[in-house]
Amino acid sequence: MHSDSRIQAEKLLDFVAAVYVTHGVPEDEARLAADTLVQADLWGHQSHGVMRLAWYVARLRSGAMRAAADPHLVIDAGALAVVDGRDSMGQVLAARAADEAVRRAKAHGIGVVAVRNSNHFGTAMYFTRRAAREGCVAFLSTNASPAMAPWGGREKRVGNNPWSIAAPAGEHAPMVLDIANTVVARGKVYLARQKGQKIPLGWAIDHEGEPTTDPLAALSGIILPMGEHKGYGIAVMMDVLSGVLTGSNFGTSVRGPYQSEHKSGAGHLMIALDIAAFQPLAEFEVRMGKLIAELKSGRLANGATEILYPGELEARNDVENRAKGLVLPPDTLSALRELAGVRANCRFELK
Amino acid sequence: MHSDSRIQAEKLLDFVAAVYVTHGVPEDEARLAADTLVQADLWGHQSHGVMRLAWYVARLRSGAMRAAADPHLVIDAGALAVVDGRDSMGQVLAARAADEAVRRAKAHGIGVVAVRNSNHFGTAMYFTRRAAREGCVAFLSTNASPAMAPWGGREKRVGNNPWSIAAPAGEHAPMVLDIANTVVARGKVYLARQKGQKIPLGWAIDHEGEPTTDPLAALSGIILPMGEHKGYGIAVMMDVLSGVLTGSNFGTSVRGPYQSEHKSGAGHLMIALDIAAFQPLAEFEVRMGKLIAELKSGRLANGATEILYPGELEARNDVENRAKGLVLPPDTLSALRELAGVRANCRFELK
Repeated sequence: MHSDSRIQAEKLLDFVAAVYVTHGVPEDEARLAADTLVQADLWGHQSHGVMRLAWYVARLRSGAMRAAADPHLVIDAGALAVVDGRDSMGQVLAARAADEAVRRAKAHGIGVVAVRNSNHFGTAMYFTRRAAREGCVAFLSTNASPAMAPWGGREKRVGNNPWSIAAPAGEHAPMVLDIANTVVARGKVYLARQKGQKIPLGWAIDHEGEPTTDPLAALSGIILPMGEHKGYGIAVMMDVLSGVLTGSNFGTSVRGPYQSEHKSGAGHLMIALDIAAFQPLAEFEVRMGKLIAELKSGRLANGATEILYPGELEARNDVENRAKGLVLPPDTLSALRELAGVRANCRFELK
Repeated sequence: MHSDSRIQAEKLLDFVAAVYVTHGVPEDEARLAADTLVQADLWGHQSHGVMRLAWYVARLRSGAMRAAADPHLVIDAGALAVVDGRDSMGQVLAARAADEAVRRAKAHGIGVVAVRNSNHFGTAMYFTRRAAREGCVAFLSTNASPAMAPWGGREKRVGNNPWSIAAPAGEHAPMVLDIANTVVARGKVYLARQKGQKIPLGWAIDHEGEPTTDPLAALSGIILPMGEHKGYGIAVMMDVLSGVLTGSNFGTSVRGPYQSEHKSGAGHLMIALDIAAFQPLAEFEVRMGKLIAELKSGRLANGATEILYPGELEARNDVENRAKGLVLPPDTLSALRELAGVRANCRFELK
């Protein structure tokens, strides 16, 4: 296989699902988990795509993550549920939480599902979009292993704790927010180092907690939260929702997906609002269309070619990548081939 | 009265309430609205304190804002309520929404109140803290008049759309996030101009949409969202929650508090989660204490004197200002005196 060849999404999905299955994941859960990864690639977020498969597989192999989901419903009370994920895969738990939250929202107007003892679930908007397709406005937060310093500190104490909100938009692709709370992805700092460029002040502090424009000092230091103290505050509150309130781990006791020997302890909070309980869904969708038209109607800043609404770029990438196939980086392809090769009875192929 | 003299909060509250009463606001609503302003000053947020009284009064005088709250309950469905504020004061509607959301959360685990046709409510955390005192984790969002350009644009299309999350923390003051979605308050740009300093790249664009470090160009341009496209996305989604979903105005049809002749059309969404439905409240508070201790335990960045958790600074200011009294800027004092002077039958005094 050549690194510039394109892979059809369906083929990649089959491959990734097969890898999961050989590691003990039941077929339907394997396909779901695989779909979350392939979908991230289709949206153009390769950092959350199939390149992560090896990390998840390592967790299955170590036994830190349970292969066959076995969550327990701890509290089942009308609009609210609390689920103990018992170290099952984050993707499977988050998808079920989305479906449960929607079901409860349809009955009560609003539904909330708290998930404790889960794992890294990948891309938050995979699950909020799932609820949006059912006519809900959905919110999902998770906590994560420490990545940021508290504002004024120089030691990692706070996860980047991603969160997402999605809403259907009728004839338009859903409007979707999905962000971590750092000012910039670590990848952009690597890129600056590679190009020999300085990074803007406000991106990172060095290991002494001093603001720096040197990408090397930034990489041995800590990336700053977005909007200074604001991003710090958001990240901490997302931990309150995802970890403290759900009864999961929180703060520095949450382990990241790269520590393959450790149970994660990550928690999530999923809230679904049934739009039809507020107003007719069709009316809501017309209003979303108006909001979108208004956002896109303004004059462009110099250098900009188009105004996009949140989630629009991903929807566009999805259409294009589904039609043309995905281009994966060479090292991702090697990693996938290696994963397929480790089992003698492997019957799947990537070419 | 000298501008450096300190005013006791209770005295200021009486004064502000009396001003509201003379403009037709019922006594209890007047005291509530007055308390939201004085409390903002006590927290150290003078930009949201009694200096805003004149703007609110102008709206009462013009008739754009209704003096005696007269909301209609449009939808009353278990965990969910939709309220038409009918142009009543935002502070009164938001406080009632908080109480209603708490009441519904106590019955259903989670409660949501959507408010349409409201007004600027001042400081979001006044209302989330109110719910936190009742043992809830609370979320509140509002939309606002256009203040930001969509990412890639150069015309104001998006409000700064503030939002807040608050949670009780046992023996500690509640943990509270309360932010607008711009990268920096406009006041900081004024300050840079005053001092003849440049502003950092990333704070603002000029009127052509070009990034600028010139405070003057920034002030005739537009302040940027925090975290670039992230703040844009957050602001838009807060409008979806506060405006589109509630059935209120949204986008550019929301009017700010300074346009005293126009109805606002602002909407809010209040969600309360009853902690006791997830776990015993005392346990939650212990967990919050652990999170707080952990945040504060890390080594300090050079130049920092202390790590604070979100909401801690406001709680500390409150204690100090309640004890010592408030220091108000001279122009705020003049404005208050003028407000008191306009009615011949005025019996309140500020000295």
